[in-house]
Formats: sequence, structure tokens, C-alpha cells
Amino acid sequence: MSEVPKDAIKCLDKGFVRLVDSMGGDDAIVQAARVSYGKGTSKVSQDRGLIRYLMRHRHTTPFEMVEFKFHCKMPIFVARQWVRHRTANINEYSLRYSEARDEFYYPDPKNIEFQSALNMQGRMGEVPDDLKQKVKDYFKEISERSFEIYSELNDAGVARELARAILPVNLYTEWYWKNDLHNLLHFIGLRSDSHAQYEIRVFSDAMAESVKAAAPIAWEAYQDYVIEGLRFSKIEQSLLEKKLPNRVIDDISEDLAYQLTASLHFNKPRDKNDLFLLYQKQGGSDSNEDFNLKWNSGEIQIGNVRELREFKEKLVKLKK
Amino acid sequence: MSEVPKDAIKCLDKGFVRLVDSMGGDDAIVQAARVSYGKGTSKVSQDRGLIRYLMRHRHTTPFEMVEFKFHCKMPIFVARQWVRHRTANINEYSLRYSEARDEFYYPDPKNIEFQSALNMQGRMGEVPDDLKQKVKDYFKEISERSFEIYSELNDAGVARELARAILPVNLYTEWYWKNDLHNLLHFIGLRSDSHAQYEIRVFSDAMAESVKAAAPIAWEAYQDYVIEGLRFSKIEQSLLEKKLPNRVIDDISEDLAYQLTASLHFNKPRDKNDLFLLYQKQGGSDSNEDFNLKWNSGEIQIGNVRELREFKEKLVKLKK
Amino acid sequence: MSEVPKDAIKCLDKGFVRLVDSMGGDDAIVQAARVSYGKGTSKVSQDRGLIRYLMRHRHTTPFEMVEFKFHCKMPIFVARQWVRHRTANINEYSLRYSEARDEFYYPDPKNIEFQSALNMQGRMGEVPDDLKQKVKDYFKEISERSFEIYSELNDAGVARELARAILPVNLYTEWYWKNDLHNLLHFIGLRSDSHAQYEIRVFSDAMAESVKAAAPIAWEAYQDYVIEGLRFSKIEQSLLEKKLPNRVIDDISEDLAYQLTASLHFNKPRDKNDLFLLYQKQGGSDSNEDFNLKWNSGEIQIGNVRELREFKEKLVKLKK
Amino acid sequence: MSEVPKDAIKCLDKGFVRLVDSMGGDDAIVQAARVSYGKGTSKVSQDRGLIRYLMRHRHTTPFEMVEFKFHCKMPIFVARQWVRHRTANINEYSLRYSEARDEFYYPDPKNIEFQSALNMQGRMGEVPDDLKQKVKDYFKEISERSFEIYSELNDAGVARELARAILPVNLYTEWYWKNDLHNLLHFIGLRSDSHAQYEIRVFSDAMAESVKAAAPIAWEAYQDYVIEGLRFSKIEQSLLEKKLPNRVIDDISEDLAYQLTASLHFNKPRDKNDLFLLYQKQGGSDSNEDFNLKWNSGEIQIGNVRELREFKEKLVKLKK
Repeated sequence: MSEVPKDAIKCLDKGFVRLVDSMGGDDAIVQAARVSYGKGTSKVSQDRGLIRYLMRHRHTTPFEMVEFKFHCKMPIFVARQWVRHRTANINEYSLRYSEARDEFYYPDPKNIEFQSALNMQGRMGEVPDDLKQKVKDYFKEISERSFEIYSELNDAGVARELARAILPVNLYTEWYWKNDLHNLLHFIGLRSDSHAQYEIRVFSDAMAESVKAAAPIAWEAYQDYVIEGLRFSKIEQSLLEKKLPNRVIDDISEDLAYQLTASLHFNKPRDKNDLFLLYQKQGGSDSNEDFNLKWNSGEIQIGNVRELREFKEKLVKLKK
Repeated sequence: MSEVPKDAIKCLDKGFVRLVDSMGGDDAIVQAARVSYGKGTSKVSQDRGLIRYLMRHRHTTPFEMVEFKFHCKMPIFVARQWVRHRTANINEYSLRYSEARDEFYYPDPKNIEFQSALNMQGRMGEVPDDLKQKVKDYFKEISERSFEIYSELNDAGVARELARAILPVNLYTEWYWKNDLHNLLHFIGLRSDSHAQYEIRVFSDAMAESVKAAAPIAWEAYQDYVIEGLRFSKIEQSLLEKKLPNRVIDDISEDLAYQLTASLHFNKPRDKNDLFLLYQKQGGSDSNEDFNLKWNSGEIQIGNVRELREFKEKLVKLKK
Repeated sequence: MSEVPKDAIKCLDKGFVRLVDSMGGDDAIVQAARVSYGKGTSKVSQDRGLIRYLMRHRHTTPFEMVEFKFHCKMPIFVARQWVRHRTANINEYSLRYSEARDEFYYPDPKNIEFQSALNMQGRMGEVPDDLKQKVKDYFKEISERSFEIYSELNDAGVARELARAILPVNLYTEWYWKNDLHNLLHFIGLRSDSHAQYEIRVFSDAMAESVKAAAPIAWEAYQDYVIEGLRFSKIEQSLLEKKLPNRVIDDISEDLAYQLTASLHFNKPRDKNDLFLLYQKQGGSDSNEDFNLKWNSGEIQIGNVRELREFKEKLVKLKK
Repeated sequence: MSEVPKDAIKCLDKGFVRLVDSMGGDDAIVQAARVSYGKGTSKVSQDRGLIRYLMRHRHTTPFEMVEFKFHCKMPIFVARQWVRHRTANINEYSLRYSEARDEFYYPDPKNIEFQSALNMQGRMGEVPDDLKQKVKDYFKEISERSFEIYSELNDAGVARELARAILPVNLYTEWYWKNDLHNLLHFIGLRSDSHAQYEIRVFSDAMAESVKAAAPIAWEAYQDYVIEGLRFSKIEQSLLEKKLPNRVIDDISEDLAYQLTASLHFNKPRDKNDLFLLYQKQGGSDSNEDFNLKWNSGEIQIGNVRELREFKEKLVKLKK
């Protein structure tokens, strides 16, 4: 069983995540996407827009062109959740072939919590110190006793594949794990979520560091559009519609008309006289005078034209 | 090449979709989910809630427990888009092994449209009649001439696998196609979307009929939470936050407190005196008097408790 | 946790395999294959030949058209091997969501064996009775003590997802598991093999019963061509070539010429006078007289023409 | 559409295969396998033995740890076969989004052949020159005419996704294609086979060059054990058994006893006096005198001990 290697991120008390190799990054996403669109390379600023566009519209295949390979060591109960992500390639330490090592996960006292009353799968609030001590003692008791027995059976020549059956799931195992960026992001989205078990979240967060470093634009886009995205169901929308005054929606739409005008103007500067017309084409309803006032206020932010337009469409859906 | 079978749904001019076999439906989703939760069977009303919960929270594996197998016939250019869904099992008619048949797709005049100026991948507005006629003539010319040549080369003994290389992609092919419900819904979500090419949408819509019949609750949930879902990105949220008055959010939240109280009361009736307390626990801020007034108005709708609570959490995120 | 259902096959001391549902069988394989070849249905005798041909030539896609769904209960260490077959759909009992039940695997004395000295992953020979007793006692000790602790922590309100970490891998879990026939056969090929661990072999053998019943021809073909197939590497062939007298190969080839003639004659009876010519075309080198003698002996077996020809080609490869 | 890049391998008349990126090679296979066996790094000579062992026993997961990404350009009918390998990640040039380019595959005269009479999916023998000329003319006619029409419809503003439907499948397309070594070898095994269509074989052979360069040991092992492997079915074995004299098998077995002795002695040199005993333990039946004679002849080859033993087991199966 491997010690924590120098270039690894330590996870829990004895585990780690180490990036072994990777292939491509933001550039590889752009490269693959452009073959679909039949276009050559372009400026970095456009690359960012393209990656964000792909993420926003769930064009997932270009993200599959980037590959990561990790060496990880974690408790068996964490490995059991992890392995459910079926697109990964895995080579795991075999307890049929090799002897188990005396390495068990002991939770840090601050992570020993009560069962959540609300969330059937969650924790809630640290337990009192005496219960913490009890948990700690019990983990130690079972780990040590089971390993003692395992060793004795091993020494007596009992088949390894059988003797290992009495080892608890807090025993550490390790593996090489390889996956593409699209599926790795999906993994991190689920396993770094606050609903995931703390013990796997630590590993997910560690892998996230490698993604951030290798594909920072893709990572940012994933956060903005998927993780931080707020999705309203049809039912929720109908509740929103009922209560959201049209006036508020109009107000936001008006705001968007300004932002759209400024963004279009920024991308391809227009003659000053054409700006009001452009603004009207974006659905703006202010008078020419008001327009000039606000325009010159310097407070209008610019954004991504396509994205602003998509937002406008969504707002319309919320109107009574 | 198969004629349109009796029990098939005709698609385009010569194609079809036919449900050959299926395994499971809404019940199989519930059955699989309950093993995860360690619970036995229960009432149908609870089944609906469970399926909707699974869909809302993207617990996708139970939907993979339902399987559909279709026999389909479609133009090659449609098959080329279709085959990109990699989880399906496919057996396609082989033009290396068998002779091509004289069956080509001719678009219906009403579907001959201009290239969209906005959407690089879309159509926009029917073309004039003379251009329609030209398209029709050209499709006929290439289809007939290529098949004539193909037949001549075939008769001369040229290898089929080579002769077929001059056949256009509007030639019909056919296949058996098998997939699970989760991936089939994903297919339909993408291919029945207004951005999908018309010619594949027709087939996707046809398969949707089978899904609706076999798993009506899952189908409805997919519509409500995925297709009709409105997702706001982090950027859009910050725009919403800026403009959405806290007052409006409070108003909706207040509404939710009433709905929650009514829903909880409906599920497990409380003593009349406990209702106001229950309402306060849901975050309601009306006075006891106001509460009684509204409560007795008979206008309070009930809903799914869990869903209403999730909505409340989302609203809080939008508050300044 | 489920008791052993009536229609299930009991596996190990407390586990089981139960066929929940299936879709298609031998007929579905033929149906899918025929769409590739552009042919309609035909006689059952031809179906058998087709299925065997597909298996022999590793045309795997038609076998993917058949689907099986099982409900299984097995120890965690078995589930850990099982889950590595990534094409399956799985819903497993969750120890985050539900409480563990007091069900642990205790090996039957006859399966308590020594570690194999030759096979790093295997067992070899039963251990003496006193060691058996020790193994039994130890399994009991760890199982009971860990469950006692687990229950105490559970009662004290410790989060389930944490408390379960001290349970050993001989604890029983259960799941719904769905896979297609091609991948199920691959599973059985690996897991019913003598090199597989006894404890998973029992489950694999149980699932094999369902395959045999639903697709008997495919099952038989898998045995004949894959399981019982003898593969000689390039290196082994060169050793065979050095020692195998050409005379022996010629002898077998001669035998094949007779079998081919008889098989062709059986499929499409020829005029008596044409038989010797047919025999010569199959590479036979006996005189007409000798041919007549042997032909009339009634000892010539018939076989599958295509298969006999493939065998002849292989033999030629072994000739000096 | 991309011209043939400098670092690409030209395929057919206008296509190519270019290695864009790769991750790992023989070393990565060994690295992943060793984590399963719980062992550290070792000598290169042992690496070769390990890779060959893994291949021989179909331990496929370590081969999945190596990844290749190619940029390829090929006719649509080739892409249609290629895409059936579902484990790959693909980004293809889109004819909905981009305009088709005037690039069509014209077969080289030497590859214009007759339909095979024996193999429903194959070719056999070049056709006469006048038929070759006819094929050439027809390919040119359809390609040019369809592109002329396509261009005219495009200029008239007809939607690209519709206009492209009249283009023949000899039109060139291109894509980025990424896959792991295990699945890439499987692809090459099927598509570089003599039964594959010539036009895809060319691309498969080109990718094989990259594999040979990046993982030469894995490549060699794949050839020795999979491609050049000779598999005898249960039926063929029973024919072999009937005709193969036991004497011949004994003869080969005797030969193996010598090879085993020499190989064991080479790996760990023994005292001269122990050699005959070692030879007898390997099943050798010669007298001590004969043994000495042959041993000193210097004609005994050494091999891989494990492999020689496996061969011996197979031979025993063939004995009457």
C-alpha cells in the first residue's frame, strides 16, 4: 500500500489523490469543438466564449476530449460510492492477490456527527465529546481486532480471498482512476455537493484542484452554468408567474436592452447616431432622451450577447 | 428493406418507428428505487411522488431499469445523428452484405425552408414554390441517377461495399435500436427539441409515444422538471437579484408558507388549534387573525411538501 | 433486507439470485441479426446455425438485443468484484439511507481452504477441522461485535453513513442488476470460471440458469466456441508446427473432405455420379474406388459446412 | 475541411490520420497493473513479461489506462462503420453548421474489384479496365453533379441541413476521435483484418503505427496472442482428438519438459546434479543418459515458464 506521495493531496487521515497524468485542457476543448464547426484557431478571448457557450448549451462531447488519470487511496466505503461512476477506467489493489495492510480510516472528531433528521442520507451537528470518544474507541477496536484475526488466518495459510472477508469497510484501498473531463466534472458536481458524504467530498475536492489548473475556463463555466445554476420546474414557474409582477420583469428586460446595446457596440462599435436605433431593436422602450442620459451614465455593464438574449427569452416565459 | 409494418408509426415519406419490445414501466422504476431505500411496495400515489422526486433530483439509475427496443427505418443522414447516442444497442441493415433498395427520402414541400440567419444549424421560413419545385426535382434526379448507376455496377458484379459509395445520404436504412429509459428520455429531450433537425424530430416524437404509454408518470416528470425546467445561470441570477424586489420574494415565500401548512395538514390532519403554529413553523408571518381569514377562504392550494420546501430555498438565494 | 424469495435461487448461506424480468431470447438475436442481412424470418434449424455463426465470428451486437434483470443479495466483497462489470445498470441498497441488517456471510466449512501456492488469487485444499472452527469463530466474533457496535452507535444517533464504516465486507447487501445477454455471457464466462472466487461463482452459476432457459441456443454456442474454445498463441503454434507431422494434418484434412461432401449432399442432395467430383472439389485425394468404399460405410458424420471449412483453413496454418 | 497536415499519414486519395495527443504507453500499463498486484516498479524485462501475461489472460483494464487522440478525415461510408465503436469520444464536422467542401473519394483503379462469391461482404479480383473506367466515370459524375446541385441550393439559401441530404456517402468528413488502448486494439483487430472493407483498413493500419510507436510491447503481445492466436472450438477439438496420435502429443510434451527445465535453470541457475531431477518434475521421461546427451546438444530453446506450462495443459486436453 502506497504512502502519501510527495506530489499528492492528502485526504482524510491516510488517503490521498495524486494526478498521475493528463491529456489536454481548455485548448483541447476548443480544438475539438472547432472541427465540428469547421473553423480554424482563433483568439483566446473567443476561446473563452466558445467554452462557455458549449457548457451553457450542454454540448458535452468536446469536454470528453480531455483526460485525467489519478492515483488515489481511500477507505473501501468511499471506493464503493466512487466506483458507481461507470465511465472511468480503474485498476484497484486486489485483496485476492495481495495481503491487506494495517491501514484503517479513523474519523477526525470534528466529523463525527449525528444522523440528520431531515436528510435521510446526511449528518447534522457534532456529537458530545463522550460519544466522540466512544466512536473513536469502537473504530479502533474493530479495526485492530479484525486485522489481528486477518493476520492470524493469513499466517495459518488460509486463502487471502476468504480471510479478507472479515475486514471492515474503513480499510484503505487504492487505485488508478482515469476519466474524461466531462464525466469528471459530473463526478465533482455530485460528489463535491453538500449532500455528498463528507468522506468522498474530500477526494472530489482534491481532484477539482487538478481540473481548475488544467482547464480553468471549463471549470469556471461549469460552476457558473451547472453548479450555481438555479433551475425552476414547471410547477415552480407557475408559482413565480402568479406572484412576479409584470412590472418587475419589464424592468429587468429594460435593463437587458441596455446591456445588449452596450455589448453589441463593444463588439463592433457603431456610429453614435445608430445607438438608439440599436437599443430599440433590442426591445428598449425608453425615450431617446432617457436613453442618452443612462447611456452616458457609464453604469451599463456589458455581457455576452448570446447569453443576454437567452435570459430575455426566459424572462418572457415568466410573464403573465 | 421493410415496408411500413401495421403496428408502426409512419415517419417522413417512407420511414417508421415500431416498438418491438419493452421491459418494465413506471412500476419498474419504483421497484428499483425502493431497493436503494430498503423499503417494500406501497400505494400508487406514493409511487408518483417517488418518481417525481427521483427525476427532480436527477437520481437517474432507477430509470435505467426500463428498456425499449424499436425497429426503425430512416434516411442515412438521420441515422448519422442518431447513432451518436452511444448507450444504445444497434443492428443496422448492411450495404456490404445486402443490396440497397430504391428508397430515398423526398422532403415534403412544407418542410423545404431557408437557412436560418440566426441559428447556424436551423431553418427559417418556407421557400417560394419555384424553389421548392427545384429542390424536389434535384432530390429526384440525384436519387434516381445514383440508384441507376448503383444497379448497373451491381449487375456488372462490382463489389457491393464499393458500389454503394455513390448513394446519397437521403437513402433509407433501417435498424433495431435498444436503449434504457434514462438514455431514451435524454435522446428525446435533445431530438424532440425545437433546435433539432426536423427529420430526426419526427422519429424522436414517434418514440416518445411509446414512452408515454409505458411510463406515463416518468414521462410527465421529465417534462415538468427537465424539458420545461427554467435554469438561471449564476450570471442571470445576479441580474435577477439586482432587480427583483425583496418584497416580491417575501410575498411568494408567504404564499408558500400557506401552501406548506395546507399540504402538511392534508397529509396528516392536525387539530385546528395547532394550525397557526404549524404555519409559523413554515415561516409564515401573518397575524393569527389574518391567517384564519385566508385559511378559511378556501383558496389555498396544496402541493408536494418536499417540492415546496425546495422552492423556498431557491427563493432565498435570490434575495438581496 | 429481503428474505430469499420463493422464485429465487439460494446462493451461499443467506444470498440469492432472482430473475425479475427479461426481454427476448434466441428469437430476438435472430431477429436483430436478420435486419443486418436484410432477410426475413426462416426455419428454426437455420436460426441455430445463424446464432452459432454469430458467436463463432464474434458478431456480438445481436446478443445485446436480449436483456435480463436480476434481484440479487450477496456479501459486500462479492458485490465489489461484481460491480466492476460496467455495462450493467444497478440500484443498490444504501447504507447511508437505510439501516444495516444483521446478516453476514459465514463460509460453509467445506469452502474454507488454504491459500494456493501456485495461483496468487486462488485456494487449494480444505484446511484441518480445528482451523475451520477457528475461521468460523472469528467470522462470528467480528460480525457480531461489529453489528453490536453499529447498533449502539445507531441508537445513540450517530450518522448512519459514518457508523456503517466499521461493518466488515461479509455483510450482505442487495441490488437490482440489469444487463444485456452479450455482457452477461462475458460476466458468466469470467465469473463461472474455475479461477474466479468461489463466492461469486455461485451467483454467476445461478444467473447462468436463467440464460440457459431464455436463450438455450446462444448458451450452447457460447460454451462451444468461447468457454470450451482452445486458443493457441503464435508461439504455441510454432511449437505445434515443429512437432505435428504433416501426415497427421493431411489425415485430418482428408477426413474433413468426406465430412464436407456428406454435409453438402445432406443440405442439397446431388446425383450419385456427382458425389466423387464434389469430394474432389473439397480437397479429397482418395481414388474413386476408395471413395465409394468409405462413402458406403455409413461412418461419415455431417457437420456445419462453414465451420468445417474454417477448420480446414486453420489446419493449413499448422502445416510445415 | 482540413488539408492533409504535415505530420499526418495520408489515407486513400484525400483522407488522413494524425495523432493529436496521447497519454502513456507500455509503462502506464505496467504502472496500473502493479497497483492491482500491490507491487512497486521493477526491471524492464519483467515489464515485458507482465504485459504479455496480462494480454494472454485478457486482463484488459491496465490497457485502458493508455489514451490516444486522432484527427482523421475519411469518406462518410467509412465513418459510418467507424462510429459503431461506441467507447470512443468523437467530435465530427457538422454539415448542419458548416458548408460541405468539394471533396469526394474516388477509388484507386487497383481497388475496384468484383463482389466476392464466397464472402457476402467481400471483394475478389480486380475488374477489367473498361469496367474500372466506368466506375471511375460514375463516381465522378455523381460526385460532381450532386455537389453542383448542393452549391446551387446553398446559394439559393436553402437550409444546409436539408441540402446536404443529396450528397453521396463518398463525401469526405472529418473528426477528432479519442479512445483508450484496449478499445483501440480491438478496433484495429477488427478493422485491419482481411475481412474488413479495404477503405477502413487503410485508416486502421495508419492508427496501428501510432500504437506500435507508443506501446511496442503491448502491440507485439496483441499480435501474438489475439491476432495470430488460433482458436479451436469444442467441435474442432473433438476432430483433432480423433486424429491426433497420442504419440505426437507425448512428443511435444517431452519437448516442453526440456524447454521448461532450461528456462527454469536460466532464471535461477541450479547445481548440475539437480538438473535431471528438475527435468523429471517437469514431466520428462527420458533416461538420465539421454537427458545428458540432449541437454549438452545446445539445441534446447528457452521460453516463458508460465506460458510453456499453459501450453502443456492445453495439450493434455487434446489427448485421447
